[in-house]
Amino acid sequence: MPANYYIAIMAGGVGSRFWPQSRSHCPKQFLDILGIGKTLLQLTVARFEQLVPLDKILIVTNAQYADLVRQQLPQLAEWQILCEPSRNNTAPCIAYTAFRLQAIDPKATFVVAPSDHIIMKEEAFIGKIRTALEYASQNPVLLTLGIQPTRPDTGYGYIHYELPTAQSANPSVCKVNRFCEKPNLETAQAFVASGEYLWNAGIFVWNVQTILEALARYSPEVFQLFQKGQGLYNTPKEAAFIQTHYPQSPNISIDYAVMETAENIHTLPADIGWSDLGTWASLYEELPKDEHQNALSVTDKSLIISQDCTQTLIKVPADKLVVVRGLDNFIVVDTPNALLIYPKNQEQEIKKVVQQIKQDKYL
Amino acid sequence: MPANYYIAIMAGGVGSRFWPQSRSHCPKQFLDILGIGKTLLQLTVARFEQLVPLDKILIVTNAQYADLVRQQLPQLAEWQILCEPSRNNTAPCIAYTAFRLQAIDPKATFVVAPSDHIIMKEEAFIGKIRTALEYASQNPVLLTLGIQPTRPDTGYGYIHYELPTAQSANPSVCKVNRFCEKPNLETAQAFVASGEYLWNAGIFVWNVQTILEALARYSPEVFQLFQKGQGLYNTPKEAAFIQTHYPQSPNISIDYAVMETAENIHTLPADIGWSDLGTWASLYEELPKDEHQNALSVTDKSLIISQDCTQTLIKVPADKLVVVRGLDNFIVVDTPNALLIYPKNQEQEIKKVVQQIKQDKYL
Repeated sequence: MPANYYIAIMAGGVGSRFWPQSRSHCPKQFLDILGIGKTLLQLTVARFEQLVPLDKILIVTNAQYADLVRQQLPQLAEWQILCEPSRNNTAPCIAYTAFRLQAIDPKATFVVAPSDHIIMKEEAFIGKIRTALEYASQNPVLLTLGIQPTRPDTGYGYIHYELPTAQSANPSVCKVNRFCEKPNLETAQAFVASGEYLWNAGIFVWNVQTILEALARYSPEVFQLFQKGQGLYNTPKEAAFIQTHYPQSPNISIDYAVMETAENIHTLPADIGWSDLGTWASLYEELPKDEHQNALSVTDKSLIISQDCTQTLIKVPADKLVVVRGLDNFIVVDTPNALLIYPKNQEQEIKKVVQQIKQDKYL
Repeated sequence: MPANYYIAIMAGGVGSRFWPQSRSHCPKQFLDILGIGKTLLQLTVARFEQLVPLDKILIVTNAQYADLVRQQLPQLAEWQILCEPSRNNTAPCIAYTAFRLQAIDPKATFVVAPSDHIIMKEEAFIGKIRTALEYASQNPVLLTLGIQPTRPDTGYGYIHYELPTAQSANPSVCKVNRFCEKPNLETAQAFVASGEYLWNAGIFVWNVQTILEALARYSPEVFQLFQKGQGLYNTPKEAAFIQTHYPQSPNISIDYAVMETAENIHTLPADIGWSDLGTWASLYEELPKDEHQNALSVTDKSLIISQDCTQTLIKVPADKLVVVRGLDNFIVVDTPNALLIYPKNQEQEIKKVVQQIKQDKYL
C-alpha cells in the first residue's frame, strides 16, 4: 500500500453496556470478550496490519487508558498513542487525529475505525478498506462503510444511499443522500424493506485535507480550536497544547458535526460480517453455541455444567465452576466483584440499574 | 449444674448438600451460613455454654478439621477436641466419646449434639436439655429430643412415642415405641396426622454407663473395638490407640447400631425452633426475607439489586454486587471459585451434579 495510508483506531469509549465485565477502568475494547485470547483492540490492530505496516496505525484513546493500550500493544511506539484528556465525543477526536496526521504527512489518507467491533469476513473488509483508501486519496469525498442491514435494528444510525447504476464511475462507491439517526422500529422496518438503506458502522475513510476542510466548513468551532495548535502537532509541544485546548471542544459526534450536513459523502456497501457488539445480545449472536443455543464461556466449556438451560449466555472468569439449571434466555456474567443474572430480552434495563450504583469499585 | 454433666458436639460431617458454600475442606458447621458473624459450630458452643462451663464441652471432629475447630474455638483446651482419624458414622464416634468421658468421670452424663443445626428457641432448648440430663443421670435410659413435626418431611427419621398420661411419672419424658427411618411421603403424612410421631433431631442424652452398656449389647463389635483402649483413654496413649483402632470400626450410625433396637429409649418432645439446615430450602425458611419473599445475603442487603425476583435465596461473598432479575424460587450461591444458580425445588439434584465434579478444588 502507498506510504501515506494510515489507520486511526478509536479506543476511548467506556462500554457501559457490557457491565459488569466492561468497567470504566477497563472497558470493552480492552477485554477478551470473545474468549479467544485477544482483546477487541488487539483483534482490530491485527486486522489492519493485513493492510498497512504497524507504524501507520494510531490509537486514539482517553488518557486514562493509555497504559492499557501500552500493555496490550507493546509493539507500538509512544507517538502512535494519541491521548484525549477529556471525553468530548468523536468530532474533536477526529479533528485532533487529522491535524496530527497532517503534520506527519500532508498527503495522508486515513481510516477512522472503532476498536470494539468485530468483523467476521476479514478478507472482504480489507478489500473494501483498500478500495476506500484508493478512492479517498484521489477524490475529495468523505467515505463511510455501509453495512447491509439484516434486521430492522433501532440501535444503529442508517445511511440512505443511491444505488449504483451501470453508468457509475466506480460502482462500489455510492453517493449518500443522507445520514439518519437511530430510527424507531416502524421507520427501521421501512428502511430495511426499501433496500436503499445501510447501517452506519462508524468506519470512515478520507484524505486529511478533505476532512479538515469539512470540519472547517461544517464544524468551525471544533476546527478553529484545533487549528490553534498548527505548528505544534507532532512536536514535543503537542501534548501541552492538547492538554489545555482539547477539553474546551464542544462535545459533538462526527456524525452530527459533519456527516449529517456535508454533501460530498459516499459509501461503500459492505458485506463484512460486522457487529458492533453493542449489547450482550449481539455478543450472544456471535458466540459459538451448544445444542440448546447456550453460549457458554468458550475458554473452557467443561467448567460450566448447565441443565435445562436454553438460549443463555454465560461468561465467567477462567477456572470458575458454574452449576446452573432452568434458565431460558438469560445473561449470566460473573466477575470477581459483581454478578449479573438478567433476562436477555430486558438487557436495555441493565444500564439504568448500573447508573444507580454509587460505589465506584463496581463501575 | 452438677459437675458431671458434659456436652459432646459432633463436628465431623462434610455438609455436601450446601455446595458450593460448604466444601469438603470447610463444611457447613464451620461456616457463618446465617450471615450473623458466627459459624454454626460457634453458635452451638455458645448455646451450651448457657448450661455448662466451657471445660465440660467436647468437640468430636474429623482430624482433617481439628485446625478449623482450634481457629474457631481458641478458648478450648487441646484435650477437648477429639479427632476421628476416619469417617465411620456416628456409632464409633459416640463410643469413642463415651470411653473418653468414662475415663474422665465415670459418673458423666452427656449430651450428643450436632454442630450444624439451629435452634431458635434457646431457652426452651436449654430447659429440655437440663431436664434430660437430670433424668438420664438418674435413670438407665437413652434419651432423645423429639421435635414436633410441622410438615410431612421425608428427609428426617421419625420417633413413634407413647403420649404421656396423667399417671406418667415425668410427663415431659415419654417412652419411645420405635425409631423409624426416613419414610416416603405417604407414610410421613400418616405419621404427622397421627400426632404420635416426632422428628429425630439426632440430639441424645445419656449416662456414660448406660450408653456403653447399650453399645455392648446392641453393637458389640463397635464396643469391643473401643474397649481395647481401656486404660489408655485420657492418657497420652489415647491418640495412638485411636489412630490405629478407630478406622477398623464398622461404618454404622448410632440410630442403626443402638436406637432402632434398644428398649430403654425415651424422648422429650421439644418445641425448640429446630432446623437441621439440611438443605438450601431449609436455610431459606430460616432467613429473613424481603417483601417478595427473597432471602438475600443478610450481611449487607444493599449489595443485591433484585428486580422481579420472588422466593429466591441469594448468598454471595461480602462486597460482591449482584444485579439479578426475573428469578422465581431459585437458589443463587456464589463463592470465589464456584457459582450455583438452581431452582430451589430441584435442589436434591445438586448433590448428583456435584458428585460428577472431578476437580478437588471445587469440592
